[in-house]
Amino acid sequence: MMVVQPKKKFELEKILNKKPDIEIYLVQHEYYASGKDAVDGQGRPMYTAFNGKLFRYIEEPIVGKPGDYVRINFLNAGPNLLYTFHIVGIVWDFAYWQGNPDNKFIGGQTVTAGPSDSWVVEFSIPPDEGAYLMLSHAVGSTDRGALGLLVCDKDAEQQSVVLSDGIKYTEEEMEEFREKAIRTITPFGIGSPDVDMPVVYGPETKEVIVRIIGNSYHPKVIQVVPGTIVKWINEDVFTYMDGEFSGIHNALVKSGPERFASPMLAHAESYSQEMKQEGEYVYMCTPHPYMEGRIIVKKDNRIDYRYAAAGPGANTKLVWFILILAAFALMIGIIALINK
Amino acid sequence: MMVVQPKKKFELEKILNKKPDIEIYLVQHEYYASGKDAVDGQGRPMYTAFNGKLFRYIEEPIVGKPGDYVRINFLNAGPNLLYTFHIVGIVWDFAYWQGNPDNKFIGGQTVTAGPSDSWVVEFSIPPDEGAYLMLSHAVGSTDRGALGLLVCDKDAEQQSVVLSDGIKYTEEEMEEFREKAIRTITPFGIGSPDVDMPVVYGPETKEVIVRIIGNSYHPKVIQVVPGTIVKWINEDVFTYMDGEFSGIHNALVKSGPERFASPMLAHAESYSQEMKQEGEYVYMCTPHPYMEGRIIVKKDNRIDYRYAAAGPGANTKLVWFILILAAFALMIGIIALINK
Amino acid sequence: MMVVQPKKKFELEKILNKKPDIEIYLVQHEYYASGKDAVDGQGRPMYTAFNGKLFRYIEEPIVGKPGDYVRINFLNAGPNLLYTFHIVGIVWDFAYWQGNPDNKFIGGQTVTAGPSDSWVVEFSIPPDEGAYLMLSHAVGSTDRGALGLLVCDKDAEQQSVVLSDGIKYTEEEMEEFREKAIRTITPFGIGSPDVDMPVVYGPETKEVIVRIIGNSYHPKVIQVVPGTIVKWINEDVFTYMDGEFSGIHNALVKSGPERFASPMLAHAESYSQEMKQEGEYVYMCTPHPYMEGRIIVKKDNRIDYRYAAAGPGANTKLVWFILILAAFALMIGIIALINK
Repeated sequence: MMVVQPKKKFELEKILNKKPDIEIYLVQHEYYASGKDAVDGQGRPMYTAFNGKLFRYIEEPIVGKPGDYVRINFLNAGPNLLYTFHIVGIVWDFAYWQGNPDNKFIGGQTVTAGPSDSWVVEFSIPPDEGAYLMLSHAVGSTDRGALGLLVCDKDAEQQSVVLSDGIKYTEEEMEEFREKAIRTITPFGIGSPDVDMPVVYGPETKEVIVRIIGNSYHPKVIQVVPGTIVKWINEDVFTYMDGEFSGIHNALVKSGPERFASPMLAHAESYSQEMKQEGEYVYMCTPHPYMEGRIIVKKDNRIDYRYAAAGPGANTKLVWFILILAAFALMIGIIALINK
Repeated sequence: MMVVQPKKKFELEKILNKKPDIEIYLVQHEYYASGKDAVDGQGRPMYTAFNGKLFRYIEEPIVGKPGDYVRINFLNAGPNLLYTFHIVGIVWDFAYWQGNPDNKFIGGQTVTAGPSDSWVVEFSIPPDEGAYLMLSHAVGSTDRGALGLLVCDKDAEQQSVVLSDGIKYTEEEMEEFREKAIRTITPFGIGSPDVDMPVVYGPETKEVIVRIIGNSYHPKVIQVVPGTIVKWINEDVFTYMDGEFSGIHNALVKSGPERFASPMLAHAESYSQEMKQEGEYVYMCTPHPYMEGRIIVKKDNRIDYRYAAAGPGANTKLVWFILILAAFALMIGIIALINK
Repeated sequence: MMVVQPKKKFELEKILNKKPDIEIYLVQHEYYASGKDAVDGQGRPMYTAFNGKLFRYIEEPIVGKPGDYVRINFLNAGPNLLYTFHIVGIVWDFAYWQGNPDNKFIGGQTVTAGPSDSWVVEFSIPPDEGAYLMLSHAVGSTDRGALGLLVCDKDAEQQSVVLSDGIKYTEEEMEEFREKAIRTITPFGIGSPDVDMPVVYGPETKEVIVRIIGNSYHPKVIQVVPGTIVKWINEDVFTYMDGEFSGIHNALVKSGPERFASPMLAHAESYSQEMKQEGEYVYMCTPHPYMEGRIIVKKDNRIDYRYAAAGPGANTKLVWFILILAAFALMIGIIALINK
């Protein structure tokens, strides 16, 4: 998050004649378990966060003293959600549209920010000690991680600046997370089976459609009987350019009993292939090799009790899981909250 | 809806040098047939309303005379929908962001309000008699109930204040509604079968996933053959606290041929159970006993012609149905439109 | 798009003391493949566009010279999407809420516009030659067509006004489009099979629900075995009036082995019919004859390899396809960007 500090002073700074006691840089952003979830409808994130970690300021609340002057630089990086930022129990003194002191609103309890929109809000912490919840009003986005606490404590140590930087982990910590993880999500590849469940088609199904959408295959994992036709349809619409930034896709088998490759598919184009040999096929997209799909071809296509293998560990109280950052969230992380 | 009246006068009151002829307090809110629909994606309400009843001001329009000065205090209580409030045929004289006379906009035909956002708008009723439609531009939300009429009639009796209070029904009226109802929705329990249809899995399915999301089971009702594994996965993410306000859930059979209970499940944790005995199982969540799910275990798992029982009454022209208020809507009903 | 030019001058016009070098009228709007997609949740468009054509200003960019004064009159006609309009690399000089010079914001990189909301933005083209991308931040809407280019070229021929009018095609051109089309979408009728895929139910399914929603049948095409019950439930909620503007619907067979007609169904009402005779049934809604559904009744209900008939042409690099304009988009095309 890049903030251009304005030359003009913000109103509350002029009134109180001091710099903010606490200045917070807060970015809301989303994680998607599938490229499809990011581009279909208005977006269906699996998780949301402030500043790179789910419930970051629930685990480590931002702490201030009664009467502290707080300024929050809020950026909704999205990519998709509308976020109505408010703090339960707080009324702003001033809110500034896109962070410019000249775009001043007086009072208010909420700022409505579409993705890429930004606000600065200013207020003083009330005299009541306790915890104030920072959240979006929309229950889905809030409960998924973009939720935090501002704690008012008269004995607080001063915390003058809260930056939006993510948390840095050592390689040892990352290794520990990977070991403890009970779920993996990845927008373009295949996550753990509770996320990217195999979709099983019986012998009554002669043809199965796999849609290519948001640089991902949907469904990512299918199971069919030998002789089933699999048909890929490219639903990505922007197919003007070649290469990585285009929505032109294909399906190329990289491992499996038989090899095949579809031609490059522009929007709404399709390719059909009969799956003859039993076995497991893993395929990818040539211009976007991080895209991955899987086809299991099996005569007896009952769903295996696949999750049994997860063992007793899956039911312990571990809440660690690995988040593979959606490329979308990364792409927009550099968007500026511009105080011109 | 709580409105703090500002000390300053609104602009049109100063210009016209009188109080509004009609002052309207208008809350938009939503009803969900499943907790999942409230927290998945950006929300998928089954119904929407102004002030507690579908099409309330279609059935009983708000009536004014040509030239009447109208002030509307609009609150989008959500919890999820973005609402773009406008009145077809009306241009505002003034719109005030979050109801503060100092946050004044001139003109405009629409106010965009994310959930928990609020506006005051002011205008004079045009000289043309007729009906002006109050609505959101988004067709889905509007057609589901949050639609009303402002009627201009030169012989109108004066209606000086329209409050946002819900309608009070007597126990007799409620009883009549219940008898006439052809549909019941409830976000956490099981509604009528046209809403919470049983999902039937044949013998080809060895394992069925039931997701716990938004304090509801999804699907709420399933039918399987004996020997099928049912696996519950907790998709609620905020599982920091114990008790009712947490997303920690379980599944505890309260009636059925066999009793079992899963352990408490934190986010992404799961529990599997083989369904051996034929019969009907009703289960609940210990910390949230209003959550309810049902499993029908049956050797011959063809879908019964279950709806036949509804009889001829189901096809008559009754439009009454019971709305069980979503707890979400209740929770936010107290949010204030603050005119600081 | 109708713009009322204000009497007052916009700020940048006063500062530069000249009319804009380029004045752009830009409407964002959406296309839906099903009425259901337009009214369910918050909308799920298949395509989006600026001024009536997907990627119109990618194919024919708007061109200006370094330093040119640009004014954009932006209207989000929706009907559903929130659109956060911005131009990558551009910071506004001024943004005017709903196009009124008195509702002036300074700076900013984005304007958040709910459907039916509008803004005027003004800026000067930077000295750097190159292409500036006009888009929404939400990846789904942008990649579906509402994406354009503003190209800065010092040798540009002057393009003083870009109107929002659609493109006019001759009957010959339309005929060519129809021949080359590899996909047809239509919100109320039945599009090509890659869009409105038949949903096949095996003999294990005794009853199939078809929902009537958004003036469309869902699923539009089903295949069942003889003896299956088909049950229509009307999910359209606004059923107050008779005729075309009401959500009262029915199902009337217009061709097929057997004829039947349901009664008119108000909200949540239903009608059931046993499908006895093999063959193909096409049915419609009496008050909305453009609504169409299809039932295929077949003893051996394996899915035919229906798409094989599309032949090799389907896999060529044609990107033409016919867009049947959603009635919703048409209805709102006349909404005004009012500069009072």
